[in-house]
Amino acid sequence: MISNLRNYFFGTDTLINTHCGLTNRVYLNNAATPLVAKPAIQELYETLPIYSYGNEPNDLSAKLTSKYNEVRDIVMNFIGADSSLDTVIYTANTTSAINILSQVYYEHDPDKVILATKMEHMANYLPFREKMKTLLVGLTPEGNVDMNDYAAKLEQYSGQIKLVTVIGASNITGIIPPFHDMAKIAHSHGAKILVDAVQLVQHKAFTMKPHTDASHIDFVSFDGHKFYTGQSGGVLVGDKAFLDQYKPLMYGAGITEFVSSSKIIYKDSPERYEAGYPDFLGVISFGAAIRFLQNIGMKNVEEWERGLYQYLIRRLSQIPNLILYGDVYNNTRTPFASFNIRDMSYHTLAHLLGYVYGIDIASGTNGSNLYVQNLLGLTDEQALSLYRSGEEYGIVRASIGLFNNYDDIDRLADALFCISSQQL
Amino acid sequence: MISNLRNYFFGTDTLINTHCGLTNRVYLNNAATPLVAKPAIQELYETLPIYSYGNEPNDLSAKLTSKYNEVRDIVMNFIGADSSLDTVIYTANTTSAINILSQVYYEHDPDKVILATKMEHMANYLPFREKMKTLLVGLTPEGNVDMNDYAAKLEQYSGQIKLVTVIGASNITGIIPPFHDMAKIAHSHGAKILVDAVQLVQHKAFTMKPHTDASHIDFVSFDGHKFYTGQSGGVLVGDKAFLDQYKPLMYGAGITEFVSSSKIIYKDSPERYEAGYPDFLGVISFGAAIRFLQNIGMKNVEEWERGLYQYLIRRLSQIPNLILYGDVYNNTRTPFASFNIRDMSYHTLAHLLGYVYGIDIASGTNGSNLYVQNLLGLTDEQALSLYRSGEEYGIVRASIGLFNNYDDIDRLADALFCISSQQL
Repeated sequence: MISNLRNYFFGTDTLINTHCGLTNRVYLNNAATPLVAKPAIQELYETLPIYSYGNEPNDLSAKLTSKYNEVRDIVMNFIGADSSLDTVIYTANTTSAINILSQVYYEHDPDKVILATKMEHMANYLPFREKMKTLLVGLTPEGNVDMNDYAAKLEQYSGQIKLVTVIGASNITGIIPPFHDMAKIAHSHGAKILVDAVQLVQHKAFTMKPHTDASHIDFVSFDGHKFYTGQSGGVLVGDKAFLDQYKPLMYGAGITEFVSSSKIIYKDSPERYEAGYPDFLGVISFGAAIRFLQNIGMKNVEEWERGLYQYLIRRLSQIPNLILYGDVYNNTRTPFASFNIRDMSYHTLAHLLGYVYGIDIASGTNGSNLYVQNLLGLTDEQALSLYRSGEEYGIVRASIGLFNNYDDIDRLADALFCISSQQL
Repeated sequence: MISNLRNYFFGTDTLINTHCGLTNRVYLNNAATPLVAKPAIQELYETLPIYSYGNEPNDLSAKLTSKYNEVRDIVMNFIGADSSLDTVIYTANTTSAINILSQVYYEHDPDKVILATKMEHMANYLPFREKMKTLLVGLTPEGNVDMNDYAAKLEQYSGQIKLVTVIGASNITGIIPPFHDMAKIAHSHGAKILVDAVQLVQHKAFTMKPHTDASHIDFVSFDGHKFYTGQSGGVLVGDKAFLDQYKPLMYGAGITEFVSSSKIIYKDSPERYEAGYPDFLGVISFGAAIRFLQNIGMKNVEEWERGLYQYLIRRLSQIPNLILYGDVYNNTRTPFASFNIRDMSYHTLAHLLGYVYGIDIASGTNGSNLYVQNLLGLTDEQALSLYRSGEEYGIVRASIGLFNNYDDIDRLADALFCISSQQL
C-alpha cells in the first residue's frame, strides 16, 4: 500500500506558479496542515445523501447519529483510552479543546498553578497563562524539556500545581518530550497531565496507557485537519468523572437536561462541553481518516516517514551555511526539521523557496513563539526589539506527511543548496 | 432556475427505511440543519487541489488565503455591513459567535445587564445568563416579542442594559420579531443590539442598515451549516472599534502580534477572536452557498418558500385536532410551523412521522426551551415536574428549505391527517 500512497491524497500533483514559471508544487507544510486524504472526503461525500440532524426520530437521522458517535470509539481505540473511565469531547479543533480544559481547571481552582514548558505551541500556553498562574519548564540545549527543571518545579510547587501540560511533539523540531515520564512525576505530586498530541498521533503510535499505570496520560487533544481531513473537528479525551463536574467554556443548546427561567440542569460530559451544532461531516471524516491510517498501520506510517526524515537530514546536513535547530538525530520525534541559512533572513529564505522553487514550507515562529525564541538564543528584550524594528525573527520549517516521497526531499535540498551557494 | 432547484441539493431523492418499507424521505427539518447545496460542496472539492495553509510565502497559499478572506466581503455585502466600521469574525458556528460576544460584554462590564427575550434559542440566552444578569422580555399571545414589556424593561434599567440580544426569526414558529424597532429603542437607552440571524438570512433579505440609522443592527451572527453547507464555519459581524478592545473567549496561535514569556501584544479584530486553525474549507464553502442564494435572488427564495409555507398552513389548518402554535398568519416570518395533535404526546407524533411515514421533522423544545414552555402555557414548576416525571414536553416542527416542493407538504399533511384520524 505504501508504494502508491500519493494517489490517496488531493493536491499531490498540483502545479504552482513561480517566478520561473509553472512547476509541480512540493508540499512540506504538513505540521501547519497536511494535504487532504481522499478517504476522508469520500466518507463526507457518501454521508451527504443521508445528511440530517442528530437524534431525530427517523431511520436516517439514527444512522447519521451512529456514524457520528462511533468516531468516539474510533478515537478511544486509537489512543488507548478507557471507555469506562474516559470521555471523548468533540471540539472545533485542538485550540478549542485546550481552551475547554483550561476553563475546566479555572472552574476547578482559579488559584492553583499550571505547569507548561517552553516547547509549547501558543494553543497550549495562552489559554492557561491568561487565566491562571502558569509556570514554564526550561529546555535542554537539544531542544527538549529539561527534566531536572521539570522535577524541581514540581517539587517546589508540590500540591499547588494541578495540571501539567505538554506538547506531544514539537511542531518546530518534531522532538517528542518524555511525556510518560513526566506523567509519572506529575502524578506523584498530585497533578494531572494533558498531552497535546496534535502533532504526534498521525505520525507515530501513541497510547494514554491504563489509568492504573503511573505514567498514564490524563487528557489528550488532537484534531482532524492535522489528520488529513482538511476540515474542522477535534477532540479532548480524558477523565470523565472529573470533566462531569465543571461549567463549560461555551453555552448553548444540547448541553442541558432541563432549562426554565428559574432552573438549569446540565448534562454530563461529553455533551456538556459540546454546545451548538454537532459537526457531523467533520467528525465522520475524521473517523475515516483515522481508520485510513490504522489500515496502513501506524508502524508503517512511522517507518516510511522516518526514512524520508533521515534522508532529509542527510541532505540538509551537507548544505553549507545551513543551520539546523534542535537535536535532529534524536529519533524520538515526528518528521519535522527547522532551519535557517546563515546571514539570510528566514523571511527571504521562505520567499525564495515558495516563489522561486514552488516549495510550500512554513516560516516564522509558527505559533511556538517561546520555543523559536529559545532556539535562536534570543532574550525577551532582544525578541521584543526585533519585533518593534519590524525585522521579526523565525525559522523555516519543512514538515513531512504520509504522501511525501524522496523526490520532494530532493527538490527541497536542491533548492536550499542553490540558495545557499548563491549566498556565498 | 426555481423549477429545478431540487437538483442543486444532496439528499433530495434519498430512500428511508420505515415500518412500512422503503420510501422517499421527506426532509422538513431545515431549521435544525438543511440539506447540503451542491455548489457549496463543489467549491470545497475545487479547493482541495490547492489546499494549503494561510499566509505562507507561495502562490497557492496566497490564492487560498484570498479565497478565505474574500468570504468576509461576501458576508458584509450580503447583510449590508459597513466595511469601514464593521468586522467579520469567523467562528466555529453561531453558538460560538454568541459566546464570543457574551465574553466581550463580560470583559466590557461584568456588572451590567443583558436584555434577551423569551423567544431565544439557548445559544442566545445561556451564554449571557451564565455570565451576567440577564433579563427576559415576555411574549405576546401571538408568540412575538412583547414590545410594551420591552420598552418598559429598557426604561426601568436605562443605562444599565448594555446589550439587547434577540433571535432574527424564531426557530420554532418562524416569527420575525421587530428587531429594527427594537434597535431604535435600545439605542435611545445607550444599549447595542445583537440579532442572531441564523434562522433568518437564508430565507429572507436582511440588512444591518447604516451605522447612522437609529435602527442599525450592531452585531449579527449566523453560520454555514444552516446555510446549506453541512459544514462548520460561522460569523460574528459588527462594530470593529468596539471589538478591538476586549480579551477573547479563546486563546491560541494567530491572535497575537508578539509573545514572549514576559509580554503579549494582541492583534485587533477579527484575528484576535480567531484562535487556532482557520477553517478554510468550511468558510470557502459558506461563501459559495451565499453566492448561490444571491444568484437565485433572495426575493425569489422568499417568494418560493412563502408559497410552500402558505400551502402548508392551508393544509394543516384542515386537519382535525391539530394545534398550531403562534400566529401562523403573520407573514413577517421564515417558513417554519410547530404543532401537536390533541391528546397525543409530541414524542409519539414525531416517531410516527419519522418511522411510519419517512418524514424528517424535529420535535421537543429544539433548543428554545423557554419559548416552547410558553407556547404550551406551562409554568416553570409544571415544566420541571414534567421533566422529573420523564414525560417531558414539546412540539413537532416542520421547517421548509429552498429545495422543498408541494409534494413534500402533501406528504406531511396526508400523514398528519391519517395520524389524526386514527387518533379519533
